[in-house]
Amino acid sequence: MAKNVKKPEEKLKVMLLGGLNEIGKNMTLIEYKDEMIIIDCGIGFPDDDMLGIDLVIPDFSYVEKNQEKLLGVFITHGHEDHIGALPYLLKTLNIPIFATRLAIGILQNKLQEHNLDFIPELVDVEAGDTVKVGNFQVEFIRVNHSIADACCLAIKTPIGTVLHTGDFKLDLTPIDGDVMDLHRLAEIGKKGVLLMLCESTNVERPGYTPSERTVGQALDNIFSQNRDKRLVIATFSSNVHRVQQIIDKSARYGRKVAITGRSMQNIVSAASELGYMNVPEGLLADINEMKRYNPEQLTIICTGSQGEPMSALYRMAYGEHDRVILGSKDLVVISAHPIPGNEKLVDNIVNELYRRGISVYREATSDVHVSGHACREEIKLMHALIKPKFFMPIHGECKHLCSHRDLAIEMGMPEKNIFVSDIGKVLEVGQKSAAFNGTVPAGKIMIDGKGVGDVGSIVLRDRKHLGEDGIIVIVAVVNSYDNTIASAPDIVTRGFVYVKESEELMADLKQEAFDSLSDSLGMGINDWAQIKNKLRDDINHLIYNKTKRRPMVLPVIINL
Amino acid sequence: MAKNVKKPEEKLKVMLLGGLNEIGKNMTLIEYKDEMIIIDCGIGFPDDDMLGIDLVIPDFSYVEKNQEKLLGVFITHGHEDHIGALPYLLKTLNIPIFATRLAIGILQNKLQEHNLDFIPELVDVEAGDTVKVGNFQVEFIRVNHSIADACCLAIKTPIGTVLHTGDFKLDLTPIDGDVMDLHRLAEIGKKGVLLMLCESTNVERPGYTPSERTVGQALDNIFSQNRDKRLVIATFSSNVHRVQQIIDKSARYGRKVAITGRSMQNIVSAASELGYMNVPEGLLADINEMKRYNPEQLTIICTGSQGEPMSALYRMAYGEHDRVILGSKDLVVISAHPIPGNEKLVDNIVNELYRRGISVYREATSDVHVSGHACREEIKLMHALIKPKFFMPIHGECKHLCSHRDLAIEMGMPEKNIFVSDIGKVLEVGQKSAAFNGTVPAGKIMIDGKGVGDVGSIVLRDRKHLGEDGIIVIVAVVNSYDNTIASAPDIVTRGFVYVKESEELMADLKQEAFDSLSDSLGMGINDWAQIKNKLRDDINHLIYNKTKRRPMVLPVIINL
Repeated sequence: MAKNVKKPEEKLKVMLLGGLNEIGKNMTLIEYKDEMIIIDCGIGFPDDDMLGIDLVIPDFSYVEKNQEKLLGVFITHGHEDHIGALPYLLKTLNIPIFATRLAIGILQNKLQEHNLDFIPELVDVEAGDTVKVGNFQVEFIRVNHSIADACCLAIKTPIGTVLHTGDFKLDLTPIDGDVMDLHRLAEIGKKGVLLMLCESTNVERPGYTPSERTVGQALDNIFSQNRDKRLVIATFSSNVHRVQQIIDKSARYGRKVAITGRSMQNIVSAASELGYMNVPEGLLADINEMKRYNPEQLTIICTGSQGEPMSALYRMAYGEHDRVILGSKDLVVISAHPIPGNEKLVDNIVNELYRRGISVYREATSDVHVSGHACREEIKLMHALIKPKFFMPIHGECKHLCSHRDLAIEMGMPEKNIFVSDIGKVLEVGQKSAAFNGTVPAGKIMIDGKGVGDVGSIVLRDRKHLGEDGIIVIVAVVNSYDNTIASAPDIVTRGFVYVKESEELMADLKQEAFDSLSDSLGMGINDWAQIKNKLRDDINHLIYNKTKRRPMVLPVIINL
Repeated sequence: MAKNVKKPEEKLKVMLLGGLNEIGKNMTLIEYKDEMIIIDCGIGFPDDDMLGIDLVIPDFSYVEKNQEKLLGVFITHGHEDHIGALPYLLKTLNIPIFATRLAIGILQNKLQEHNLDFIPELVDVEAGDTVKVGNFQVEFIRVNHSIADACCLAIKTPIGTVLHTGDFKLDLTPIDGDVMDLHRLAEIGKKGVLLMLCESTNVERPGYTPSERTVGQALDNIFSQNRDKRLVIATFSSNVHRVQQIIDKSARYGRKVAITGRSMQNIVSAASELGYMNVPEGLLADINEMKRYNPEQLTIICTGSQGEPMSALYRMAYGEHDRVILGSKDLVVISAHPIPGNEKLVDNIVNELYRRGISVYREATSDVHVSGHACREEIKLMHALIKPKFFMPIHGECKHLCSHRDLAIEMGMPEKNIFVSDIGKVLEVGQKSAAFNGTVPAGKIMIDGKGVGDVGSIVLRDRKHLGEDGIIVIVAVVNSYDNTIASAPDIVTRGFVYVKESEELMADLKQEAFDSLSDSLGMGINDWAQIKNKLRDDINHLIYNKTKRRPMVLPVIINL
């Protein structure tokens, strides 16, 4: 009878460990038996409510707990949200990283800024290569994106093939000539894909994303119509093809190119060295020698396309750049789309430039930017090529993942084969069935200065409270031998009101604090927590009645 | 010879006193000799960097200083950013307000919440009426907008006619049948307009704004395709025509309508009473008796289309509404566009709804909203009709005003006749010439709770600092008779780190504070400011070295 007992079906586990609003954006884990690989390891940018937080990394506790299973990290491309958390992961784990050359180059720069105890194993691969680790065979397949050398990953496992698209678009006229490898994707789709994880960023945008080359046409118009002006062009430093196009147009229209902004300088030199960028001999001008050129002889390529305070464009707009002073002989181009949350920062710069009489070409009024992500029809093409048995939308807010699910249903996929996941959820995938089963620790680890994870929800709640309403500190000294007030309460406020214009209120607060404390002591209360609570309540009450505000009230009682 | 001495040309003064990013949005002043009128008196919504601020009103100091000149306030329409600051203006000035009936109705509700010492004179006018005050004749002319009964103003003065468009769009198939009064605008243009102030909100959007009626078609599709679901529709309460359309569709598809959200209930009852809305007898269902109806028998109209925390939609989305529990039998429609800055709030609600398995129709994916503002071609039409001698773009960020200037130039207006103004700038307009001449006090007065203007830049700077980095309070007690430390410094932090997980750092800080204070006292320093500064510097230094953070450090020394 024993031969009829079924062996339990072997399964893959797929987990999304990273991503804030964009679920699954920064890190994916695939586990098979006692083996595990990581796909991407990036940072997230803090939400509005993460006050004072510099950046956010995935929770590595599951990875660290299972580190003996870990075979390697596979990187789809070199953007911050896909590689930026590696220095933190590598602080405790020494595991090989597999990525294409540009991503490796950017990563090396980044690792130099962190002090690791060992030299990590960085393995560069080319699109088309397959890396074998344990039971996994990971094939890197060319896609188009807003950074050079981006790949999707076809991961062959004993259970079946998992295709992870990474970030992609289909550019049929790419700057470097390398179109997304449609042939290979078609082959893989034909052989059968068990599970596809596909990005969802632009799933709500109809049609196709225009080719990067359309930006070149817009730039050409700007160059040809503004031959008497200096051109200042801000873009993402990692958008190597965009920067290349600006360089090409400058060469064509007889301009020198000056570069300002640290990350722009780094990337241009790294990308040139690695052969991703081609800068004609003698084209570059030193930003320190700008005076040697007339305005119309120069293009300035700079950082700051996201409105970042203290970026090169920001400093130029506000007249704080030590090398470039903008005036009516300048024309600014912002060749980028604001990341959600940065809209106001960018608007502030644009308005400041207009205020100074400088016109600005931007996405809203001119075709100076295209997205790096697939629109709806390209996403459909990916589904049509890959024809997966199971599907998990990734890289998007919940609304995007749900729209992507609806798209797959529209294309004929059974709803039960689609898995809208969330950070930390475990999808178990067998050859015949797939289902969610449990969760693993996952979430946002906040980085503030040197601190990793030492700021949590209580600290953030206090920051929000402090930021919106300010603080009132009440300091009193009490003689412990007879429970009398040794020094009348002192009141210090920050972020509340102009103290000088609120003398009456301050006097009332002092009196109230004195009365509250006298009451408590008079009643013989000597539980300091109780005394402080009463003091806090009394002061809160008075302030709210007089001002309708609720600053943080912090009583400090010194016991002599 | 005396007869050759030219009398100085008589001039109008035009000043934009209100508006934050949107210059001239909330308040305009027109002055002629010793007479003055105000157009609109609204609030602005606080910027991201105005932490804890509830709302922003214009600076009234110029108006108050010249109150004997003031003849009246003329209101273009009843939106908050055009009437919301009136209760603050009326606190000190008793002047007549002229507006159409809906705006008066909304204003009356608003004034009841503020306690004025007198009953202000609210004069209701109809589109087509002319009000004569002093040398001004102010004609109210019908325009279309996202609130009923909106008007532009043609102001006849001894110098010439000033046309102020207010907010407008051209809706050729409006819900109430009242198309913008093209005939009257054409007449006025033909007679000659000296100066036009024209809104610029959508000047960067090509083409025409669709008719409000197109939303009706989209709603009709939603109603007809979702007959088995309960519909929850969020929109601006003041968008009377939108609410009317939802009511009409509900009646047509045999649904009762329940209303939730205070402002929505207020406006529906006010608008119905005033005859701006037509609610069929027996259509309304009490939100408290929802259980009497099956889901498919109900439409719920609610507030919260801007994602406002604690609005009806917010509470429903997060399961906190005491009457409505959403589930898979519900479909949510957000019939609105997020005001810049509110995008994330709205996204959060949408994602939360999807997470709970509820689909959401919204502007991004469906035609459930149209703008209330003229797009580029409608703005051109206004220019073509009015043909002003001088032109001042208003209601927009600097980039919009400059785009609007370029549009006017494109249409043939000489650049020297166009005046891109800013808050507080004075434009002097004569019959033959116009020029900027000086400024008046103007700006943003911030309202925080009951406080009007008691929060300024220092308080805001402190709030930002507190919000991003938290605070460290150091309290020490010193015996003044011998300058010795009476009690070792106590350290209290908020919004900095989890104290329990940072015991070592806290101990270091205590020691550093003790050492710093001992040093100062040991050196015989008895200037308390100097001692505190050293304490602050020493602590700052230690914290930055250990954490790379800069919390606010607040030393309090009690002198016994």
